[in-house]
Amino acid sequence: METHGLLMVFTGNGKGKTTAALGMAMRSAGHGLKVCIIQFIKGSWTYGEIEAIRRYADCIDLHVMGRGFTWKSDNLEEDRRLALEGWNLARQCMDSGTYHLVILDEFTYLLHYKMLDLDTCLKALAKRRKEQHVVITGRYAPDALVEAADLVTEMQAIKHPLQAGIKAQRGIEF
Amino acid sequence: METHGLLMVFTGNGKGKTTAALGMAMRSAGHGLKVCIIQFIKGSWTYGEIEAIRRYADCIDLHVMGRGFTWKSDNLEEDRRLALEGWNLARQCMDSGTYHLVILDEFTYLLHYKMLDLDTCLKALAKRRKEQHVVITGRYAPDALVEAADLVTEMQAIKHPLQAGIKAQRGIEF
Repeated sequence: METHGLLMVFTGNGKGKTTAALGMAMRSAGHGLKVCIIQFIKGSWTYGEIEAIRRYADCIDLHVMGRGFTWKSDNLEEDRRLALEGWNLARQCMDSGTYHLVILDEFTYLLHYKMLDLDTCLKALAKRRKEQHVVITGRYAPDALVEAADLVTEMQAIKHPLQAGIKAQRGIEF
Repeated sequence: METHGLLMVFTGNGKGKTTAALGMAMRSAGHGLKVCIIQFIKGSWTYGEIEAIRRYADCIDLHVMGRGFTWKSDNLEEDRRLALEGWNLARQCMDSGTYHLVILDEFTYLLHYKMLDLDTCLKALAKRRKEQHVVITGRYAPDALVEAADLVTEMQAIKHPLQAGIKAQRGIEF
């Protein structure tokens, strides 16, 4: 079996980006392969996801980095520091050789809001170990990231229940 | 907590439809809620998914129905019989009150290829228990299904590694 590490991006405004990344983590874990998830928006993963992963603690490592819910704070310096801290961890995980798959959840926001230098990130991604699979999720994936990726799916919202005034549902939305 | 059973559709030609459904199953299971997955294309789920679910055997039931890989066989009568068998099981699962979430994986093909009557299916979906969440995945979701759904995400393939001649990867594609 030829291993070719893929750079995969789930972007767009629709539901299913992080959910697909979670499904992919589970699929790898099903093979007994190790996965590292770095969550770049604190609080975006809630009880259901975290408990789901807990049963795979032997296969899946989860790191919660960054700020709560948004990167648009008043303290740009602190934001940049946290972004860099998360990115450095991501690089360590990719370099370690421990993980079949590294998931950078909601990472696109850091690029979109220029918390990190896009070129530097793309160069590091391009230089990663050749068998290292990486999934990046989040809206507003920069064009250069799409260009660099092997697989890109745009999750497009055709309909969303919150538009119809329906409350978020346990086990579905969170 | 108000429970409003959602009808959710993951459609489009991109990767991530079944993966998102699997992630959603895991999220529900993380809450300790029961999930039933009915897989309408035999063989479409492979080792990774099936093993991932096995560790949640207390929360997730998986039924493999239908034919292998395609519904476009030479024996239309047999196809229709298998489609109806799967659909009857789906109705039983929705009526049972056992499951927080019922996933009809690759179900859209049965509607698209007219193995089942669309109106009959939509009426049964509309009459389901009011707290029953349902996820339907697959390409070619009929307009009337999109119309009936609460949440629809179209997974659009922007890029796919098979286009670039890269082989399917263990833990990623299967």
